[in-house]
Amino acid sequence: MFENRDKKRTEISSIGEFGLIKKITENFKIKNASTIKGVGDDAAVIFADNKRLLVSTDLLIEGVHFDLMFTPLKHLGYKAAVVNFSDIAAMNGVPKQITVGIAISNRFSVEAIEELYAGISMACNKYNVDLIGGDTTSSVSGLFISITVIGEAEEGEIVYRNTAKEGDLVCVTGDLGASYMGLQILEREKFVFKNNPEVQPDLEGHDYILERQLKPEARMDIIELLKKLEIKPTSMIDISDGLASEIMHICDDSKVGCKLFEDKIPIDIETIKTAESFKIAPLVCALSGGEDYELLFTIKIEDFEKIKSSGQIQIIGHITNAAEGINLITKADQSIPLTTPGWDSFKSSISEN
Amino acid sequence: MFENRDKKRTEISSIGEFGLIKKITENFKIKNASTIKGVGDDAAVIFADNKRLLVSTDLLIEGVHFDLMFTPLKHLGYKAAVVNFSDIAAMNGVPKQITVGIAISNRFSVEAIEELYAGISMACNKYNVDLIGGDTTSSVSGLFISITVIGEAEEGEIVYRNTAKEGDLVCVTGDLGASYMGLQILEREKFVFKNNPEVQPDLEGHDYILERQLKPEARMDIIELLKKLEIKPTSMIDISDGLASEIMHICDDSKVGCKLFEDKIPIDIETIKTAESFKIAPLVCALSGGEDYELLFTIKIEDFEKIKSSGQIQIIGHITNAAEGINLITKADQSIPLTTPGWDSFKSSISEN
Repeated sequence: MFENRDKKRTEISSIGEFGLIKKITENFKIKNASTIKGVGDDAAVIFADNKRLLVSTDLLIEGVHFDLMFTPLKHLGYKAAVVNFSDIAAMNGVPKQITVGIAISNRFSVEAIEELYAGISMACNKYNVDLIGGDTTSSVSGLFISITVIGEAEEGEIVYRNTAKEGDLVCVTGDLGASYMGLQILEREKFVFKNNPEVQPDLEGHDYILERQLKPEARMDIIELLKKLEIKPTSMIDISDGLASEIMHICDDSKVGCKLFEDKIPIDIETIKTAESFKIAPLVCALSGGEDYELLFTIKIEDFEKIKSSGQIQIIGHITNAAEGINLITKADQSIPLTTPGWDSFKSSISEN
Repeated sequence: MFENRDKKRTEISSIGEFGLIKKITENFKIKNASTIKGVGDDAAVIFADNKRLLVSTDLLIEGVHFDLMFTPLKHLGYKAAVVNFSDIAAMNGVPKQITVGIAISNRFSVEAIEELYAGISMACNKYNVDLIGGDTTSSVSGLFISITVIGEAEEGEIVYRNTAKEGDLVCVTGDLGASYMGLQILEREKFVFKNNPEVQPDLEGHDYILERQLKPEARMDIIELLKKLEIKPTSMIDISDGLASEIMHICDDSKVGCKLFEDKIPIDIETIKTAESFKIAPLVCALSGGEDYELLFTIKIEDFEKIKSSGQIQIIGHITNAAEGINLITKADQSIPLTTPGWDSFKSSISEN
């Protein structure tokens, strides 16, 4: 609905796979010394010296993870790269290389795919990451994106999700639920547009939550801050499926329980106002909305003083023993077991074929 | 058409994403010391010590790269992994880890996905490779597989495709064109089946070419043989899109030409007979059929004696200067410029949406 329809359209079949690869990769320059050979052979070559390598793969599927009706391709490319960088941040590492596989139906023009890669390129430049390879092929229908990211960390720096200990403090960065409310706004305007394509989308006053949905960032700044503060989290995960789902991963994998306090969970005022206008409890957005790409981590209680004054990290609870369970303490001081699942593509209503 | 329709069917939505991941990954055991942490966190962890890492990504899309009408899911999983190992072989390296991303529509049951992973597991066991991560999500339609493989090589061992030199000998392993003819047989039987589902598929006498299509292998044995013979190829590539396309990559990237001799190109007798029954020139299968996953490489002329007696490597021509072009010398001693393109999914007739 926001598309510029005057654009030039070159069919991908007119330049073929190798023509397309050349076009989309020629603007990527190698930035990391560890990237020995990037695009252009059967495999890329990396030299990690004495470092540990972190590897993560994410798929983004049209109709499941994104809707091109309201997602500009450049934003989609940026987000696809960044959500992978966020997985490396969640290990306390630094992203260095990505491979990008895309499958595209002939609905997409060369120019459309260039837009997608312009977004990937923008993310790679901002985060100092090299595109080192991938695959480009046709699909029977729709757009599929597969990104594998490779990051680096020193051996002793890596933080897993299964190492939280009783007594640790639970911390979260930024604020939660905004991305989900941004998506609700976009879905609403799509609905309006479908019924009347003449109506201009009404997005005013929603800049922050829309940006959180369309152009999220990986919290590399927090990874740097933690190093500066000389804090190594005892466990960490990024929030892609919602706070409830992620804290359950930490607790289940670490064999601990936790207490989170509702009044400590950071939610932006724009998220709250929009949620209320949609008659959704803001807390539900924070717990189950997902796509925040904030970091959820635990620290030793001794590190409390160091973190307190940073202003960028919110302590939302503490780790208990497993028998106490995973609980939310409400503003009314009630303890509610957290069972809310995060977003699960197999249980969502989008995919019906 | 070969499917066993009596099988139990569990809906993926009944166990969800995490249930599915648990089911399909629990049988994978870590085999390599370089795999520090496999499935189960935001990223896997690898320690490559002083080695160079090789990274390659391949996509396999239903309706473009495979047809489930005649491809058993276990074979598909095996092939999806092996074709990635072949990319690492083509760099003169050894595959060590893979990540597997799959997107599946709800047409697929839990049992079907277990079959797919049983094939991936079989390939990982045979080639001593660890499954270290991935992503599992729903798709709106069809099956989409993305595999990223990570391999190792010592610094001085890596062989690129852009380093062939004038005077080098052009070598190929195994035989070519068989996989393509195997596909033709399967396509023919699919056509028959569609018109009359009561007719049993007639595959007799085609074991070899069917196996080449459905269960290819990566030539790790050749990589070991070359090490034993103390030969480092001057350039190398694996044959996924057909001999013509691959030799053009080597020549274009190395800025050289070549002469290949028709009578030296290895084609199995079963391929020849089947091709003739289909009224296809066997040479065309070898040049443009693809999916052979044999190795095409160049060696210094001094290494001729070492290779001659191996019995597993065929010398099919030599490298010339670029001005002479890329030529095939026919049995009638005519020189024909090779321009035949390999398979290009964007130019094939399968994808029309």
